[in-house]
Amino acid sequence: MSELTMDTLVSLCKRRGFVYQSSEIYGGLTSAWDYGPLGVELKNNIQRFWWKQMTQLHDNIVGLDAAILMHPRVWEASGHVENFNDPLVSCKNCKQRFRTDAIPEELWAKRQCPECGGQLSEPRQFNLMFKTHMGPVEDSISVVYLRPETAQGIYVNFKNVVQTGRVKVPFGIAQVGKAFRNEITTKNFIFRTCEFEQMEMQFFIHPSEDGKWFDYWKAERFEYYKKLGVRESRLRFHQHGPDELAFYAKVAFDIQYEFPFGWKELEGIHNRTDYDLRRHGEFSGKDLTYLDDGRNERFTPYVIETSAGLTRTVLTVLSDAYDEDEAEGEKRVVLRFHPAIAPVTVGVFPLVKKDGLAELARDIEVGLREDFSTFYDQGGAIGRRYRRQDEAGTPYCVTIDYQTKEDRTVTLRFRDSMQQVRIKIEEIPAAIRKATKEYQRV
Amino acid sequence: MSELTMDTLVSLCKRRGFVYQSSEIYGGLTSAWDYGPLGVELKNNIQRFWWKQMTQLHDNIVGLDAAILMHPRVWEASGHVENFNDPLVSCKNCKQRFRTDAIPEELWAKRQCPECGGQLSEPRQFNLMFKTHMGPVEDSISVVYLRPETAQGIYVNFKNVVQTGRVKVPFGIAQVGKAFRNEITTKNFIFRTCEFEQMEMQFFIHPSEDGKWFDYWKAERFEYYKKLGVRESRLRFHQHGPDELAFYAKVAFDIQYEFPFGWKELEGIHNRTDYDLRRHGEFSGKDLTYLDDGRNERFTPYVIETSAGLTRTVLTVLSDAYDEDEAEGEKRVVLRFHPAIAPVTVGVFPLVKKDGLAELARDIEVGLREDFSTFYDQGGAIGRRYRRQDEAGTPYCVTIDYQTKEDRTVTLRFRDSMQQVRIKIEEIPAAIRKATKEYQRV
Repeated sequence: MSELTMDTLVSLCKRRGFVYQSSEIYGGLTSAWDYGPLGVELKNNIQRFWWKQMTQLHDNIVGLDAAILMHPRVWEASGHVENFNDPLVSCKNCKQRFRTDAIPEELWAKRQCPECGGQLSEPRQFNLMFKTHMGPVEDSISVVYLRPETAQGIYVNFKNVVQTGRVKVPFGIAQVGKAFRNEITTKNFIFRTCEFEQMEMQFFIHPSEDGKWFDYWKAERFEYYKKLGVRESRLRFHQHGPDELAFYAKVAFDIQYEFPFGWKELEGIHNRTDYDLRRHGEFSGKDLTYLDDGRNERFTPYVIETSAGLTRTVLTVLSDAYDEDEAEGEKRVVLRFHPAIAPVTVGVFPLVKKDGLAELARDIEVGLREDFSTFYDQGGAIGRRYRRQDEAGTPYCVTIDYQTKEDRTVTLRFRDSMQQVRIKIEEIPAAIRKATKEYQRV
Repeated sequence: MSELTMDTLVSLCKRRGFVYQSSEIYGGLTSAWDYGPLGVELKNNIQRFWWKQMTQLHDNIVGLDAAILMHPRVWEASGHVENFNDPLVSCKNCKQRFRTDAIPEELWAKRQCPECGGQLSEPRQFNLMFKTHMGPVEDSISVVYLRPETAQGIYVNFKNVVQTGRVKVPFGIAQVGKAFRNEITTKNFIFRTCEFEQMEMQFFIHPSEDGKWFDYWKAERFEYYKKLGVRESRLRFHQHGPDELAFYAKVAFDIQYEFPFGWKELEGIHNRTDYDLRRHGEFSGKDLTYLDDGRNERFTPYVIETSAGLTRTVLTVLSDAYDEDEAEGEKRVVLRFHPAIAPVTVGVFPLVKKDGLAELARDIEVGLREDFSTFYDQGGAIGRRYRRQDEAGTPYCVTIDYQTKEDRTVTLRFRDSMQQVRIKIEEIPAAIRKATKEYQRV
């Protein structure tokens, strides 16, 4: 396939209703994005896939959904109030602000503004948490933050889940939700944004078993992306060196994906030790240790964290699915989504509108709705309708023609191979399920 | 059944891991709640049920997911900056603040504080939107709001969806997401909170058809709650009188539910006319009219809005499902959730742990995981395990006993009737699906 550029992808996303710029009619809001009709289905499907893999298929992982607004002490305990900073400088002439690491070295040596050449101020620490006030008085007591990560909502509920969730260490708590970071430098479309979604699982273990469980989740999470249909050749591990490691982490690996703009982090697997539970125990004055009946031992569990970006996974899946080939002598754009996460599962078309074919096709489409996400289309040449669904990543299309009226058979057409088979109407659901189960990325 | 009190419900929610107070170890955050292992599954299932009913089963409704942070002009156009206020007074003595409508009449006449009897200030307008700043400078230019409703994200994307979504008026856009209101008076558990989730659908129509479509959606949305398993006797319509009607609405009906604290709004169905699209057209300078090919007419569509609370629906479903009856001569607490939204679909138990029954039961449970949300439990007397699942609202339980080893049959037990039937292992999935389809609330 030809090299995919971000321009091509962003333009496809807009044109087909995957992703729109937020508040576009007002000139847009920096780095905020809205998910259109196809985008929201893709995002929801990825979220469900993750949730099922992590909770339903693991008997020792339960779910949680904590509020975005939390008690401000949470962020003192976590270290975010003190440490979640970027150093910023401002230009004394043009008043713009910059992250110091974004200024070219030769300008930085002279403390010169990259925009106007003016004099730069000394760096000041800028906290990346969005701040707001709860209640009518805007003072320091009423400050609350928009959470910069979902993980802390899990730690502060650790005791609740242990007491009510019928779980025993080792066990995990999974959560999907929004997080917010007041990033000065946002870029690469939906890759880095101020508002984003995380899919995090925190796995609580005995401290002596951290190596074993770290290796388990490192392998498990890599496999997950393969199940999601992402090509293995575009995935790799990256181990955090001593200079990259967060202050609370003992070991950390990223799973990276090769985006059109290079290899970048898609998920982090971190050994966070007992840092978070210990800190919340200290700051809250509550006992967050765990009594292990089997070991007859009380300890503060270690945490192995698997932290994936949902919105980042949407970008991964879009980049990975994009392909170009040839159909009927013309260039074809096709999104090779795994059928399990494609926004539309099956397109249904009458060959022509007349002679009752439209009504028959509509009946078939309505019959499929209960079990599948469908799209009915009767407009334009049949080849054009296939092309539209290829570009939307729809894995299956069903076409109703004159023969259907005679023998109740339809054409089932596959997106990737463009192969067509003739099957009975009542065989459609089973054929779709079988092909989805056996799906292989070409 | 006996009368349910909020105390009983809140206590059950905490005890069984449906809902915890947010940041509880830090003393809690006013009116913010976290959803525990059972609560998040219930909430997710309700969300999926709504999404499927509104998008997958309607060919003229598409989905959307807009960002929480939007351009500040959106809230000028919508009227929220100007009108979304509560009048507040403060006490000159004890400094507390109150909504004027929350002060008893006789105290208000004397302008006396309900807490300390001190002198109250003149009322001041207090805007209910949470405010924050994007970027490093906290000034008026950088102000952004947390959206107080999800609807505006739909209106500002109307043109994008028309251009890219292959939709024609009449059509709808559905969205589920968080909204935030800086409420001074929050109460009734998760009924009114500062952070909440909405499930909204905006249906765009020709202005001449507003009566017809209003009636359609009014009826359709009432039916929806019946499908969700809510008892019709606890549902009613309430029409907004002239004093209740929002300034943009022509007609409005609420669907109310009889909560333990009385009849309260669960969903609003509003004829919002062309107010929102017209205002966004004016404020953005963009053309948000619609060209109707069939009518050969250009117009600004009217909007029929169906606006439901997701977190409020969770409370409705919990209240409605709660029941007490008798089992084995003792009081039984049972949550009669519709099986389609129950957090756990099937509990799997070995009668005893020994003689290979635990291993066999685990095999059966693992086999069911792919298709159902399962819970494996081998602890305590079998009657006690049934009681635990009844209280969690699990509609089906499968018990493995010595006979299972001989003839591969198990006991399938139904939550509501407590009836037990003997079936083959391989018949379990079909039996569950059939019973779910035929489910009737007792």
